[in-house]
Amino acid sequence: MATSTPAYLPHPLAQLSRGEFLKARDVIVKLHGAEASLFFRSIYLNEPKRADVVAFLEVEHAGTLSDATERPPRQALVEYDFITTDDHTYTRTVVDVVSGDVVSNEAVGRSSQPYFTVPEFSLFQDACVGSDLFREAMSEFTLPEGFKVTIDPWPYGGPDEDEGIIPRYMQGLVFATDASKNNPDSNHYGYPIPIIPVMDWVTKQVIRVDRVATGGSEDSFAPNERGNTPRRLFQNSKSAEYVPELLDGPLRSDLKPLNVVQPEGASFTVHPDGLVEWQKWRFRLGFTPREGAVLHDVCYDNRSILYRLSYSEMTVPYGDPRPPFHRKQAFDFGDGGIGRAGNNLELGCDCLGAIHYVDSYLAAPDGLPTPAKSVICLHEQDNGILWKHTNFRTNRAVVTRNREFVVQFIVTLANYEYIFAYKLDLAGGITIETRATGVVSVVGIDEGKLSNYGAVVSPGVLAQNHQHIFAVRIDPVMDSYASGDTQIVVEETIGQSMNPQTNPMGNYYEIQRETVNKATWMDAKPRLNRLLKLENATKKNAVSGRPVGYRLVPPATQTLLADGRSTVAARARFAQHHVWVTGHRDGELWAAGEFTNQSREEKGGVADMVKRGDWFTDDGSQRNGAPRGDRTRADNMGGDARRSTPVVWTAFGLTHNPRVEDWPVMPVEIHQIHLRPADFFTANPALDVPSTRNRASVLLSCCGNDDDDEKPSVQEDPGSHLQGSGPNIDARMAGAKIDDGSSS
Amino acid sequence: MATSTPAYLPHPLAQLSRGEFLKARDVIVKLHGAEASLFFRSIYLNEPKRADVVAFLEVEHAGTLSDATERPPRQALVEYDFITTDDHTYTRTVVDVVSGDVVSNEAVGRSSQPYFTVPEFSLFQDACVGSDLFREAMSEFTLPEGFKVTIDPWPYGGPDEDEGIIPRYMQGLVFATDASKNNPDSNHYGYPIPIIPVMDWVTKQVIRVDRVATGGSEDSFAPNERGNTPRRLFQNSKSAEYVPELLDGPLRSDLKPLNVVQPEGASFTVHPDGLVEWQKWRFRLGFTPREGAVLHDVCYDNRSILYRLSYSEMTVPYGDPRPPFHRKQAFDFGDGGIGRAGNNLELGCDCLGAIHYVDSYLAAPDGLPTPAKSVICLHEQDNGILWKHTNFRTNRAVVTRNREFVVQFIVTLANYEYIFAYKLDLAGGITIETRATGVVSVVGIDEGKLSNYGAVVSPGVLAQNHQHIFAVRIDPVMDSYASGDTQIVVEETIGQSMNPQTNPMGNYYEIQRETVNKATWMDAKPRLNRLLKLENATKKNAVSGRPVGYRLVPPATQTLLADGRSTVAARARFAQHHVWVTGHRDGELWAAGEFTNQSREEKGGVADMVKRGDWFTDDGSQRNGAPRGDRTRADNMGGDARRSTPVVWTAFGLTHNPRVEDWPVMPVEIHQIHLRPADFFTANPALDVPSTRNRASVLLSCCGNDDDDEKPSVQEDPGSHLQGSGPNIDARMAGAKIDDGSSS
Repeated sequence: MATSTPAYLPHPLAQLSRGEFLKARDVIVKLHGAEASLFFRSIYLNEPKRADVVAFLEVEHAGTLSDATERPPRQALVEYDFITTDDHTYTRTVVDVVSGDVVSNEAVGRSSQPYFTVPEFSLFQDACVGSDLFREAMSEFTLPEGFKVTIDPWPYGGPDEDEGIIPRYMQGLVFATDASKNNPDSNHYGYPIPIIPVMDWVTKQVIRVDRVATGGSEDSFAPNERGNTPRRLFQNSKSAEYVPELLDGPLRSDLKPLNVVQPEGASFTVHPDGLVEWQKWRFRLGFTPREGAVLHDVCYDNRSILYRLSYSEMTVPYGDPRPPFHRKQAFDFGDGGIGRAGNNLELGCDCLGAIHYVDSYLAAPDGLPTPAKSVICLHEQDNGILWKHTNFRTNRAVVTRNREFVVQFIVTLANYEYIFAYKLDLAGGITIETRATGVVSVVGIDEGKLSNYGAVVSPGVLAQNHQHIFAVRIDPVMDSYASGDTQIVVEETIGQSMNPQTNPMGNYYEIQRETVNKATWMDAKPRLNRLLKLENATKKNAVSGRPVGYRLVPPATQTLLADGRSTVAARARFAQHHVWVTGHRDGELWAAGEFTNQSREEKGGVADMVKRGDWFTDDGSQRNGAPRGDRTRADNMGGDARRSTPVVWTAFGLTHNPRVEDWPVMPVEIHQIHLRPADFFTANPALDVPSTRNRASVLLSCCGNDDDDEKPSVQEDPGSHLQGSGPNIDARMAGAKIDDGSSS
Repeated sequence: MATSTPAYLPHPLAQLSRGEFLKARDVIVKLHGAEASLFFRSIYLNEPKRADVVAFLEVEHAGTLSDATERPPRQALVEYDFITTDDHTYTRTVVDVVSGDVVSNEAVGRSSQPYFTVPEFSLFQDACVGSDLFREAMSEFTLPEGFKVTIDPWPYGGPDEDEGIIPRYMQGLVFATDASKNNPDSNHYGYPIPIIPVMDWVTKQVIRVDRVATGGSEDSFAPNERGNTPRRLFQNSKSAEYVPELLDGPLRSDLKPLNVVQPEGASFTVHPDGLVEWQKWRFRLGFTPREGAVLHDVCYDNRSILYRLSYSEMTVPYGDPRPPFHRKQAFDFGDGGIGRAGNNLELGCDCLGAIHYVDSYLAAPDGLPTPAKSVICLHEQDNGILWKHTNFRTNRAVVTRNREFVVQFIVTLANYEYIFAYKLDLAGGITIETRATGVVSVVGIDEGKLSNYGAVVSPGVLAQNHQHIFAVRIDPVMDSYASGDTQIVVEETIGQSMNPQTNPMGNYYEIQRETVNKATWMDAKPRLNRLLKLENATKKNAVSGRPVGYRLVPPATQTLLADGRSTVAARARFAQHHVWVTGHRDGELWAAGEFTNQSREEKGGVADMVKRGDWFTDDGSQRNGAPRGDRTRADNMGGDARRSTPVVWTAFGLTHNPRVEDWPVMPVEIHQIHLRPADFFTANPALDVPSTRNRASVLLSCCGNDDDDEKPSVQEDPGSHLQGSGPNIDARMAGAKIDDGSSS
């Protein structure tokens, strides 16, 4: 529970400072003794319990914070391996960074594999290249002169049923780089080598090298037979360069500069403790090794909307049926960590205008804080018109611009890139945007063959069909932090049959509402205009009499395609429905569960959360047969008898069947989710946005007026036929009378 | 057929020049004699036959145009009423603007009502106010002092079955303006008066005044009984102002300027004859009174993609079941005309940066050209990142910006606004964007009541539930103008059951294709990832071996909700399916048919086009039982025995159940459709976009570094713990070794 601590403590949701980070690390080193061998994975804020933070936020937003205000304990979560001669024990230790106390210390069993860190991945290539098994496999091929092996480490994926309990594995996709170009950024993905080495991460030994098939649709799933002489690879391959100095042709020279200039600076303020204010919005910006940027305590006009908004997980299963490609199934949050994969963003490249960059720390293997520089950028952008109305009687237009505030972070996962953004707008809307770009994952295909399993994007290169399915976690606090005040309602719009009394002309349609009483999943139904209302259960909009809230339209994207009996499907239950509504429990942030690396099934993910039957209303409790005892509106702290606070998860994605245009680096595929106020405000909240004319815009006259007969031109005198228009008449309405023919 | 004409003739797709416009008008005046009474509605280019234009374009794109090149005849279409004492005959006359010949002259029967023009609409208020029936109706109410009646003219909608054949009607929604504010832009929509006058347009007589219900959900459909004294309206109403000087509070003052500056100008060229070139794109920009901006002959790198791209229709049915609200069903293209309703765009308001405006002409009632100034704006904008890849081994990022070229036009339809845009991008993509804004249509509701038929957005004001369903017409020419070369394929992605031979691990999924053989409709199926491929039937991509083409994902928005037996539904068959594929016929541009005004059913729209059974492949011909005679790949010019050229229509929209935030002017609801190359190119066409750093962007340091312990900062020396990183190692990978504990 909350304890009274000095007021100079950071905000409960602020990232760990360097000092706190170091203190937590030192506690762990001390705990195990200086002789212990430790491998640090992550050190970051152990988010306080929601109920404790809410108690603090209520005081904060009331403006009555003082030294005496109770604050949640300030804690770090330290994730590390405790290494003995024959074992690595993955350990999660919570440290109080004020007192230095060890709050909890949990050794995770070996059946759960933690995520990989960047340093772990980086060990892989050397271990492979030094291995006899790998050298033996490579001896089956000859590469063109000057080509060198380059290996992309990958998670092993879900073990097959017949594999039993396996150690910590890592696999690799093998490519060659044309080193004769003497450019470390020459793209190796155009030269795939059809072997996949598998390494035991503890022993650092390559335990086997899988040979993979390179046939077309008509061929068997078996790899090519080994011939008497090594296969000569890349005889007719083409390079896949994308860095400008290696392109075959010149760059375009006719794209003139387009600058975003903010002469008075930006309209937002970033406070040292992570508080961000922009227009009437405020939120606290977090950053975690697994999620990247996280938005906490999102408020508009000091009214609470979201307690927490985050990307939770992503799975990328590949649709090539030839083993071992079924184990190409990344969980980029759980297997690696999006925050750890964050790009160091660069001015004038990743966004335009006046940019604020946010730094963080990541843990080095020795537990010391490594600066993660510019991993988030904050900026404003213009997104066209926000609202406009022209009075057709006077021709006066009032038009405002759609300024957006963007929280952007970009991650690189070996070949692939994702650009994530949270956007706030002037009308109270929140957009959650995902852009997929980077290099599609490819394998080799025999020259001249085609395949149903993907697209040949370059000679000998097959870009396999795959899906990306993301989960976003939304923890709403609709105009109240109090547990139980926020409810989720499913709203559908349904056409009605003609009926003499209620629908005589057949044009009526009905909005139907159903409160979500207990934890459940549901699918998008665009034909029913199905949407979720995140509402305050008791507060009504003073104008409309309807509950104040926000609406979320779950995107109707394709769900996971893998057979429900497959390991691929078992590992990603979250990807099989568009929406999950679960009861809040502290620390439950992961749609596919905490441990996805080498998982055989989703454990502790949204499907399990639904299964336990949390309920949100008395009705849900009854249906569920839950005890009717304690129905207080207190937060659910784990007791089944309590009403839960609903958390909404939306799963969406894209089925990416590559096209040639995705090679060698794909143009962005953009996906957006919109959270929009629905009777949260008593009018358009952007009504007070100035409709100022932008004076920096300029008029172009690209084409001459010399060729008068070729082009309509209003510079001409329209002549006396046009009668003078009164002040209330649009110019085009002038002369608005029946022509009597006299004017010709 | 094409005739040889001098080379100084305009391009066949260029808008009419002022001289051509005037010539056509004069021919009509001469045709009927100076004594005739004419009411001109429209004069615009009579688009030549597709086959004739294609023949010309093939020569043009081959670069072999000469004086001797055959050109289609240059014609104007003149639409006007020929007025006699007791009749108005709507007439469509085609005039050859070179020879002055009348090519055709068609008097349309009285059962089809042409669209309304702005001058017609403007007659309505005075006719109403001068009418006894209207005055009598108004005597049932008293308005607050200083309030004046303001009437919005509306199309009558679909007549009821029991109305029989009716004359040309117009109805009006009646409001009051608070004239005491002495501001002609004071918003009247906050003060609805519950009557609807209906006028006979020919006699200009108000023939009846409908009283409309103002009850809540629990009340009958009948209007309130007339009491002994007039009802006092607007006792507790609130103003609904949006012009800045009438707002209750101040405007925001903290939104700092954001300028788009293009110091070297824009990257596009607009030629006098309508040709627009931007990057590797070129197209011809048209503008018609009904459609607004139209894109003709859209090519990339001189390869044809679209013959014509246009918005075709929109229907806006209202869901309030109380008659006569079922007749609130606008067809804004067919009943009025989007081009005629175009805003005169303003620099620095409707877009930012370096802007080129395009003018046009509209016909005044006397047939003279009225300048339609700045009805289209052309500009470039930045839409974030286009593609990015970071080599994680070197940390080198290559990132390009997503520059877009935008063709925008904005229309005002009494209360409502639509912002239409065609966007071209650097990667070969085309986005068709619709933004809905303006004032939602409202009626009165008794104070304190609520309704299932809409939202109370202000005291006494009910914003009725409604739908907007749009149709876009896409006429593809996939890398060939030749008729028959372009085919439409439906592609779906289907999960497959586990199978020991073909899908042993259950991860396989299949892309299934089916060619559209004959005219048909279909619905979006996002769960199947259903998309349309617009393909060249014979040309294969040199890399992938697949047909060159573009893909279109039909948006899975809610279709028309009205009961299929209703007049509302009969008038808008196009709105009942997401996609229509029809056989091309010249002049068939209208999804709901040419005559929507007072229509009882959709005639000549997409449903009728499908019914006639045009076929695109031999297989389609067979299934259809069409004669197997002439199967040449010639364009279908009306003969049923010929193979047709497919045209694709996509119908999409939004079910708009208003929220209070939509009042008094709604923030934009944005909808986009994407046409993206799919194996049209042999690599990412944007690979040659420079990854130049934008030098105008600036770094903000919003928050001080003074509070060191509160915020991670990379300005700090990370200390000797961080080992020097080699050139190929990401900074965050430095120190990537197992910690032996010695560093602490």
